[in-house]
Amino acid sequence: MSGRLYALGTGPGASDLITVRAARIIGKLDVLYAPAGRKGGDSLALSIVREYLSDATEVRTCHFPMSADNDEKALVWDETAAALIHEVEQGKQVGFITLGDAMLFSTWVYLLARIGHPEWLEIVPGVTSFAAIASRAQLPLAMEQQSLAVMSCTVSHQALAEALRAHECVVLMKVYGRFAQIKALLQHLDLIDSAVLMAEATLPGEQCWRDLKSVPGDQPLPYFSTILVNKQWRRQG
Amino acid sequence: MSGRLYALGTGPGASDLITVRAARIIGKLDVLYAPAGRKGGDSLALSIVREYLSDATEVRTCHFPMSADNDEKALVWDETAAALIHEVEQGKQVGFITLGDAMLFSTWVYLLARIGHPEWLEIVPGVTSFAAIASRAQLPLAMEQQSLAVMSCTVSHQALAEALRAHECVVLMKVYGRFAQIKALLQHLDLIDSAVLMAEATLPGEQCWRDLKSVPGDQPLPYFSTILVNKQWRRQG
Repeated sequence: MSGRLYALGTGPGASDLITVRAARIIGKLDVLYAPAGRKGGDSLALSIVREYLSDATEVRTCHFPMSADNDEKALVWDETAAALIHEVEQGKQVGFITLGDAMLFSTWVYLLARIGHPEWLEIVPGVTSFAAIASRAQLPLAMEQQSLAVMSCTVSHQALAEALRAHECVVLMKVYGRFAQIKALLQHLDLIDSAVLMAEATLPGEQCWRDLKSVPGDQPLPYFSTILVNKQWRRQG
Repeated sequence: MSGRLYALGTGPGASDLITVRAARIIGKLDVLYAPAGRKGGDSLALSIVREYLSDATEVRTCHFPMSADNDEKALVWDETAAALIHEVEQGKQVGFITLGDAMLFSTWVYLLARIGHPEWLEIVPGVTSFAAIASRAQLPLAMEQQSLAVMSCTVSHQALAEALRAHECVVLMKVYGRFAQIKALLQHLDLIDSAVLMAEATLPGEQCWRDLKSVPGDQPLPYFSTILVNKQWRRQG
């Protein structure tokens, strides 16, 4: 059997929100690469897929530093891409898992940029975190003529304000550490009652705040915290 | 057993791109409601989930008219919502399937607006079409500080142009019947080499055009045709 590499989106967090295709592929892998948040730390992506793994699969966790040093980051991506290619050249079935979808806000894309588009590569999409949040909060995203913007809260205040003016629905990712400013912006634009804040959607620690006015600006939030805004929707009461 | 209603995203088209959760739920349903494009016509959503259905499940296809008559549409949604509620009140396990994700550009949301948020409702997210297209075309969507806009090509030329100026990545849905105008806009903004056109992603009829300059403006396109734009990416050669 010739070697293949599968880049697999694991979905938002619950094990059964992975696709049937990804679950089946994971069960037949020789090697699985799983990114870990910290060096030697646990991998959330790995915990999602563990139940689909066969005993025969070797698991290698890899740590991608959040370092501001771009050379250090590039070195780790170079090494990981080279390791993946080496495994495939040995004829192995190799998986690389990534939280949510494989192509949206995903570390996998840095590896793709190095690996290119060989015939032996297959990318399997996953449920994005914001789709899972919309389902769990029962808050619709865009429909028909409406539009949706997906923004990281790490961008400028002005870019966030423009997106909130231009689109009916906005997903604000990476709220962590920036909630007070985002809350003030939503109040300024009279959108605070059209917003929902959710943390760790579909995981055991899931939390949902529907009345953002009453959430203190210094509320401690988990790392995976996201705000959804839908202008057509306003909180009752 | 008390009745429950599951709104289930089927994913983009391939049967194995549904979530494990949705597949398991579908296997245990008493009744499945499947939207059909035409009255008495086939349901693509139904064809996606058929392999997970038990013989004991009753299947009801329902047709939502594309009519410009809002009263006619509202009547069908009212009737379908009432029928779903009636099934749940009889203690049944009821499913309603919807292409892609359940909460993004989804007819299900019109039913949600009528049903509200009862304790017996669970919404299961799905892989959105644009995530599947990005994986199939191996074209990354936004990362890190970048942003993504998801637009319907039925909106104004100005709104599309603004989104293409403001965001690094743009998904242009519903290209069908509007390709010539969209192509001209992408050429005007010098984005034609940063765009990919895909039709029927993950289905047997999947087609991908990577050189949009060479695609004639009157190219016949399937109904499910979408353009992805990523400014960081330019076609080679």
